[in-house]
Amino acid sequence: MSEQLLSSRNLAFELYEVLDAEALTARPRFAEHNRETFDAALGTARSLAEKYFAPHNRKGDEHEPRYVDGRAELIAEVKPAVQAFLDAGLLNANRDFDVGGMQLPSLVSQACFAHFQAANAGTTAYPFLTMGAANLIESFGDETQKRLFLQPMIDGRFFGTMALTEPHAGSSLADIRTRAEPVGDGSYRLKGNKIFISAGDHELSENIVHMVLAKLPDAPAGVKGISLFIVPKYRVDADGRLGARNDVTLAGLFHKMGWRGTTSTALNFGDNGQCIGYLVGQPHQGLAYMFQMMNEARIGVGMGAVMLGYAGYLYSLDYARQRPQGRQVDNKDPHSPPVPIIEHADVRRMLLMQKAYVEGAFDLGLYAARLFDDTHTAPDATTREQAQQLLDLLTPIVKSWPSAFCLKANELAIQILGGHGYTRDYPVEQYYRDNRLNPIHEGTEGIQSLDLLGRKLAQNGGAGLKHLIRLIAATAERASHHPNLDALRQPLEQLVNRLQAATLALLGDLAQGKAAAALANSALYLKVFGHCVIGWRWLEQAIHAELGLLKEVEADRDFYQGKLQAARYFLIWEVPGCHTELALLEARDDTCLGMHEGWF
Amino acid sequence: MSEQLLSSRNLAFELYEVLDAEALTARPRFAEHNRETFDAALGTARSLAEKYFAPHNRKGDEHEPRYVDGRAELIAEVKPAVQAFLDAGLLNANRDFDVGGMQLPSLVSQACFAHFQAANAGTTAYPFLTMGAANLIESFGDETQKRLFLQPMIDGRFFGTMALTEPHAGSSLADIRTRAEPVGDGSYRLKGNKIFISAGDHELSENIVHMVLAKLPDAPAGVKGISLFIVPKYRVDADGRLGARNDVTLAGLFHKMGWRGTTSTALNFGDNGQCIGYLVGQPHQGLAYMFQMMNEARIGVGMGAVMLGYAGYLYSLDYARQRPQGRQVDNKDPHSPPVPIIEHADVRRMLLMQKAYVEGAFDLGLYAARLFDDTHTAPDATTREQAQQLLDLLTPIVKSWPSAFCLKANELAIQILGGHGYTRDYPVEQYYRDNRLNPIHEGTEGIQSLDLLGRKLAQNGGAGLKHLIRLIAATAERASHHPNLDALRQPLEQLVNRLQAATLALLGDLAQGKAAAALANSALYLKVFGHCVIGWRWLEQAIHAELGLLKEVEADRDFYQGKLQAARYFLIWEVPGCHTELALLEARDDTCLGMHEGWF
Repeated sequence: MSEQLLSSRNLAFELYEVLDAEALTARPRFAEHNRETFDAALGTARSLAEKYFAPHNRKGDEHEPRYVDGRAELIAEVKPAVQAFLDAGLLNANRDFDVGGMQLPSLVSQACFAHFQAANAGTTAYPFLTMGAANLIESFGDETQKRLFLQPMIDGRFFGTMALTEPHAGSSLADIRTRAEPVGDGSYRLKGNKIFISAGDHELSENIVHMVLAKLPDAPAGVKGISLFIVPKYRVDADGRLGARNDVTLAGLFHKMGWRGTTSTALNFGDNGQCIGYLVGQPHQGLAYMFQMMNEARIGVGMGAVMLGYAGYLYSLDYARQRPQGRQVDNKDPHSPPVPIIEHADVRRMLLMQKAYVEGAFDLGLYAARLFDDTHTAPDATTREQAQQLLDLLTPIVKSWPSAFCLKANELAIQILGGHGYTRDYPVEQYYRDNRLNPIHEGTEGIQSLDLLGRKLAQNGGAGLKHLIRLIAATAERASHHPNLDALRQPLEQLVNRLQAATLALLGDLAQGKAAAALANSALYLKVFGHCVIGWRWLEQAIHAELGLLKEVEADRDFYQGKLQAARYFLIWEVPGCHTELALLEARDDTCLGMHEGWF
Repeated sequence: MSEQLLSSRNLAFELYEVLDAEALTARPRFAEHNRETFDAALGTARSLAEKYFAPHNRKGDEHEPRYVDGRAELIAEVKPAVQAFLDAGLLNANRDFDVGGMQLPSLVSQACFAHFQAANAGTTAYPFLTMGAANLIESFGDETQKRLFLQPMIDGRFFGTMALTEPHAGSSLADIRTRAEPVGDGSYRLKGNKIFISAGDHELSENIVHMVLAKLPDAPAGVKGISLFIVPKYRVDADGRLGARNDVTLAGLFHKMGWRGTTSTALNFGDNGQCIGYLVGQPHQGLAYMFQMMNEARIGVGMGAVMLGYAGYLYSLDYARQRPQGRQVDNKDPHSPPVPIIEHADVRRMLLMQKAYVEGAFDLGLYAARLFDDTHTAPDATTREQAQQLLDLLTPIVKSWPSAFCLKANELAIQILGGHGYTRDYPVEQYYRDNRLNPIHEGTEGIQSLDLLGRKLAQNGGAGLKHLIRLIAATAERASHHPNLDALRQPLEQLVNRLQAATLALLGDLAQGKAAAALANSALYLKVFGHCVIGWRWLEQAIHAELGLLKEVEADRDFYQGKLQAARYFLIWEVPGCHTELALLEARDDTCLGMHEGWF
């Protein structure tokens, strides 16, 4: 097997041809960097992922964390893997040089992280959640909180979690019941129960910093009454010394379909009335903080879905090249030798679908990371603002589209391996089981669809959407200079035009208070919008493939031809199907909305 | 939870409204039967499935068979469950009264069996494979073989397997290497290795009868050189007494993603040169025998896929009714109580999709069983012949469509339960894992698509297809008398007309030897043809729902309205999308076929 995690040629194509990572080095923040430093970081990530993460991916699945004497026990391989990640400085890849960070663009750090996501979703979650918790404190915590909790996370001594979900409320955070009572000394006593807390207990770090959503006594009802608290597993004194256990109890572990290497916990806060926590930022602003942070986390979740899809694609591709079986349909000679199954048209279809899904989504995820860089470091304010608006709009797609379609890719990888793919002797069934979580956590597909149609589209007077449509038009214009791309450009333009009109009509309904009917088919809208975005990204890739072919480098010819064929697959096989869904959206079809509960 | 396995109201609708099971009792073979005897058998099946099969479904998943001292050890619950099935006479539900059978129509026996398939896919496989093996010997064995091997299977003393697949050949049976040398006394010595043999070892029965495909020394190359052998685990003397172990070795067990209750084995035949087997029927006819038997088995596999989908649908429906979470999108009052999630439009969509998939496929599976009855017992020869032609044509759909779309239903059931659905505390993730096998075994989706487009359509001068199109037209004509059904009938008619034209063009290409191009997109053809068939079956169901509503039985009103809404979903949301695929088929689009191996 040549490459297990991701194609380095494709990564170079994305970074240095499509997304022009080197242009970022012109910005002051990244002035110390160049292609060589980027590649060095990527090479480190690749080799650590291969050496420390991939080898125990199956073992972590087979030996999920166990509940022993009130704590979660992991397999021994997790700790050295995470330590290698920390030692390489990858936890702080984006942070400033002066706090020990690598000051890399998000584009490059996401690409680094992608290797670990492909190698071992379960183990990767521990640093991932720590980064998310650290970013929250960095953005919204006070100086004491940064000293006592953020700095030890940056130093790799404390790990973090996100503690949002409660048993009775699920995704409906408005209804959480965890309470926080002021003690009088500036701290709070928390009481409540949380479930599905990933990495909620382990002994990988000296301490665990839970970022907990809870309600203050005077909280207004609903989402406007949620506050954010730091709740450490072990108390920390004013000098940063670890004290006694805080009143956080591991109530139990969840046993999942996949992603078993990450312990998923039920945590009780304040069973004995002694759970101390610290308010982060202002009262009642917890959900807003969480969502601001979540933009970056959702890119990470989307990329996680991509990378499981990518690993499955590469594995099934390699298998299809190696495995001889059967003959081509027009060969009737039973004496002829069997051919590798990649010669069968239907196997090629399943590989090309996977390629279109995973490389399309990979491009989108990195594009989003590039936008994130622009929100922080673009030289002019307009670019920064536009990048933020576009990133806000695209976030539900970046999270949901890979979760749906790279999961589908994993299903196809199993199919290519056939009976073997269904056994645990091959990795593809685990990729599917691991990836099945992604359409659920960090906001289900349904929630993403409501976020897109009910919230993001209309934000800032629709500025994000207008910007997106301008960008797609610009891509189509550039594509029009390549006659080979006419057949690819046209279906995208047809889709965008119709989607734009349907969107305006739906937003009009929403503005008139017809929310139930306008949002009823939000799942269809999410799919069409996602296909439009991925279709755009494939047209971008196709343009760069055409440009690449013009360079006439023989060694690259196959690579660019493959890109064009995958773009062709997506734009000709997948994009036109969206018109069926658009017709339902245009008609405000009420088949699902009108299905009475009693009729089931 | 009201009903876990299948809806008894829907079953009655299928049997006594749509498929008119009672009409079968006018035929001599079923003259002893009536609706009461049918319902008694169904009630027995239901209660045994609930009592003996469902309770250990999860345990069988958690404790898969273990390899101990050269044999496979199962959990203790399997044996009493299978024994209860045997004791109730269900293994011989279709067989003649005079051999101890129940002489039930296949329509009713498939419906009986469906309860077990919903309750516990893993345990159900043991009797399922035994029935398949017994049917093979009944159809093609000689009198001695029937006495020594079939009768003990009918008596429940011997179980059976199908031993086809070999490690190097997979689905390509033309390339099997297992050899059978004549001993001189009429028996044969076999030598070879088989994999993925379900139920290949256990101690549920006194003996195991392996139905083995192998090649005689003078066999022509390819599929025309395959013969069928009986190879018992224990030798049997001329008086039927069990002797020593035959030279069949359990080489190992496969550890699967799901369906873990069924042991999947690697078997070595003749490691010590002492594996005795008996030729069934004529030399070199093995594959034809296997395929003749497989029609019935493939209905069974398709129904198995349906029933896993059905169980997941019912579970997620019940969950959605019970689970309060969130508020409707037009309710901005955070003080209002949460609503059951079935009130959310997107949850209703996911339930309605499941209903459309599982009840559509359930109808098709039972319709196929009804056709099977017609092939044997229809009064006139023309009807019998037409039924056989239609069943042959539909078999790839009956097998593959539920495998694809009821698997999708299981994916949706997980999504409705959210984080809970992803844990092993709820059954829906297991349903998905179990069902994931169905698109692979007994002929992959790819193989079904080639069987349909490359073989079945043109059989008997296309008589099956012509008959099907007449039947669809007749249904559409009857639907035209119900103005409510106009919106449902029209998309079906549009699809059928275009599909018919595309089919003729593809068959024309095949007749001209353009197989590679004509078959390249067979997966698309399979999907469109399947949607056409299921759309037809939904229109049939809709007509019977309209007729039902005319009876003005208040208690039935909701049921029929639900049927109409599910038909509406399928015909308005799903069927029109097929035109995208038809356009690709019409254009002989070569995007996948033209993707070179080196471009990946």
